Amino acid sequence: MKQSLLFTKTRKESPKDEVAKNADLLIRAGYIHKELAGVYSLLPLGLRVMNNIANIIREEMNAVGGQELFLTVLQDKSPWEKTGRWSDAVVDNWFKTKLKNDTEVGLASTHEEPLTALMKNHIRSFRDLPVYTYQIQTKFRNEARAKSGIMRGREFLMKDLYSFSRDQKDHDAFYEKAKIAYMNVFRRVGLGNKTYITFASGGTFSKYSHEFQTITDAGEDIIYIHEGKKIAVNKEVMNDEVLADLGVKKEDLKEAKAVEVGNIFSLGYRFSEPLELTYLDELGKPQKVFMGCYGIGLGRLMGVVAETFSDVNGLVWPKEIAPFAVHLVELGGEKPEVRECAEKLYAEFNKKGISVLYDNRDLRAGEKFKDSDLIGIPLRVVVSEKMLAEQSVEVKDRKTGEVAKVPLDAIVSYVRAL
Amino acid sequence: MKQSLLFTKTRKESPKDEVAKNADLLIRAGYIHKELAGVYSLLPLGLRVMNNIANIIREEMNAVGGQELFLTVLQDKSPWEKTGRWSDAVVDNWFKTKLKNDTEVGLASTHEEPLTALMKNHIRSFRDLPVYTYQIQTKFRNEARAKSGIMRGREFLMKDLYSFSRDQKDHDAFYEKAKIAYMNVFRRVGLGNKTYITFASGGTFSKYSHEFQTITDAGEDIIYIHEGKKIAVNKEVMNDEVLADLGVKKEDLKEAKAVEVGNIFSLGYRFSEPLELTYLDELGKPQKVFMGCYGIGLGRLMGVVAETFSDVNGLVWPKEIAPFAVHLVELGGEKPEVRECAEKLYAEFNKKGISVLYDNRDLRAGEKFKDSDLIGIPLRVVVSEKMLAEQSVEVKDRKTGEVAKVPLDAIVSYVRAL
Repeated sequence: MKQSLLFTKTRKESPKDEVAKNADLLIRAGYIHKELAGVYSLLPLGLRVMNNIANIIREEMNAVGGQELFLTVLQDKSPWEKTGRWSDAVVDNWFKTKLKNDTEVGLASTHEEPLTALMKNHIRSFRDLPVYTYQIQTKFRNEARAKSGIMRGREFLMKDLYSFSRDQKDHDAFYEKAKIAYMNVFRRVGLGNKTYITFASGGTFSKYSHEFQTITDAGEDIIYIHEGKKIAVNKEVMNDEVLADLGVKKEDLKEAKAVEVGNIFSLGYRFSEPLELTYLDELGKPQKVFMGCYGIGLGRLMGVVAETFSDVNGLVWPKEIAPFAVHLVELGGEKPEVRECAEKLYAEFNKKGISVLYDNRDLRAGEKFKDSDLIGIPLRVVVSEKMLAEQSVEVKDRKTGEVAKVPLDAIVSYVRAL
Repeated sequence: MKQSLLFTKTRKESPKDEVAKNADLLIRAGYIHKELAGVYSLLPLGLRVMNNIANIIREEMNAVGGQELFLTVLQDKSPWEKTGRWSDAVVDNWFKTKLKNDTEVGLASTHEEPLTALMKNHIRSFRDLPVYTYQIQTKFRNEARAKSGIMRGREFLMKDLYSFSRDQKDHDAFYEKAKIAYMNVFRRVGLGNKTYITFASGGTFSKYSHEFQTITDAGEDIIYIHEGKKIAVNKEVMNDEVLADLGVKKEDLKEAKAVEVGNIFSLGYRFSEPLELTYLDELGKPQKVFMGCYGIGLGRLMGVVAETFSDVNGLVWPKEIAPFAVHLVELGGEKPEVRECAEKLYAEFNKKGISVLYDNRDLRAGEKFKDSDLIGIPLRVVVSEKMLAEQSVEVKDRKTGEVAKVPLDAIVSYVRAL
């Protein structure tokens, strides 16, 4: 994409109403726009990052047999009444609205109820199980405060997968697969070595649920990490019994602030029982379906990456989710040979499937480099009269700051090989 | 995808609460699920069709310089108050809800106000124009009645593009390009020769707006078509002045029922004036931005295609938006040689990038064919013991019903060549 056509402008000044580093950086660099506290629009750069995150998640969910669907935001209250979760006294972050005929409807904060009700049309026999469905969809939660930027929104994109199994044994086998798929996601977005499977409270049907907690100073949770086992315990459940269950000693644990980027949960019959989701077993006897749920907040993930990979100059995107692979910066484009060379490189990168933002704007080098650092594309390739004289370009790694001179005719293969 | 893994079941019976043909067919074939009247979830097959439609629209919007973004559902009321559209007396289909602190917020029915407000951060000078932004996003409209299936939803996916231009002249040039892009979209989804650019009421800033009306008995609009000019006039504006403007005679027009699948609209200064979106011209003088908006309802489009391309046996998807290109149906899969052949073909289609639904289920031929007709994938490829004896498969065109015998070793190239 040519930067002259990108409508977003960077800002020097921090927005006055943001305390979260992620929102400050993402707004200044032109990735997001604040509509309301906890409600952010994605601008073109932000949407590109979000799509990259979504595609990684999709690949990992498909790999464990997930089928993608897209449920609605507006929710019929009847299944929620059956599970006892319609009341604002039970679920305190509902957004609700009304149809013309005064019927109350909810805005989706999660989808266990409508999906379980929907599945009654499709699950009849043991042959229909297991089913793993997921979606990447907007959720709404009426948070009292929203001060963490895109890490805790009132409106946010979430991937939620729900599993429907014959029994606990089948469920447990999938649950273990989901753990691996989740760690794949966090590794691929660049958070692998900062993210720990964390034992948390399990609810009615299992002793523990599992959170995926990423270490960051911006975290709202406290966890205790066991580096040897690569696991952690959420402070909320930390006690001698848990330590015994995990076979770890208290003195081997290290306290850290962290943010929950995902969680997986055994639901058991919590929803299939009140909503009467059953299947007929081999003997023709009705049996309750055993369920699980598996969530990742995409906005939160993007926010944590922004918090984690940034420096005083701006964002430092991991390659896998960067909005572009290359920031091609032209200096002195008023010289025809510079412009021609940059245009040629731009075409060549595109042709080879390397995504590139081409800064063809008529600005001073200092301004261009400042913007480039703030936007944080992993690789900067500079075309200038000086470098052209040596038939070369300058390549700068945004993360390490390392600079290399690369011959013009080798730059595309150089970038591809990284 | 293997059909044994597709969780959705087809239904023989029509749902009792649907009067619209599109919803009846799409529910019976397992494409959608009704959550509430006018509120439908997309099941895996439905999501595939919707994604195909979305990608066609994206390509055409990108081709005219559109930049994709993703605005929020929850809306701050202040810009709506400035344009006079917050009141339910003015806009009668608002859904509204409240934050914890009792602040009212709206659910997006359209995005002129928030986007115009957002653009104040990014448009400063004549050099920043034009800007064309679009999104594919969920809209909410509190319709009093919702009886047209996915053709008129209370919650629905919409592509909305907004143009920001220096003046009417620049605007008009883009407006003409948008017309062509729109007709490209409708042609590519298979509705080209049933869709007419239709003159409709223009509002404050132009005499006419343009609707794209597709002829269908399920339509709620009446239009008058001029076949020679490939244009139409909406009944709402039909009078002698319009006929004179278009240079057509009343007797050359043909009345038809139609549904509006898209519309484009010159907004002029309707939003930039109250929201004070201005730019500095070459002389440093502030000027108002001239705007336009351009909408396509994706659900409506999918509904119209379902209404238009279907027969007594079910759906008949146009190739470009079908959920799969090929329905590979195995008959007698308990025979190892049949199963082996079908599996091999399945792998080969996938390898060649031909999307395929593989019916590997243990069901009678009659049931499989009934499902296949209802689901409506353009091409059915049947592997059976009988055909295998001749080293062939049977290929049936869902639309024409034509059947061909194709040698096994030629089937992939046969399909690719269609």
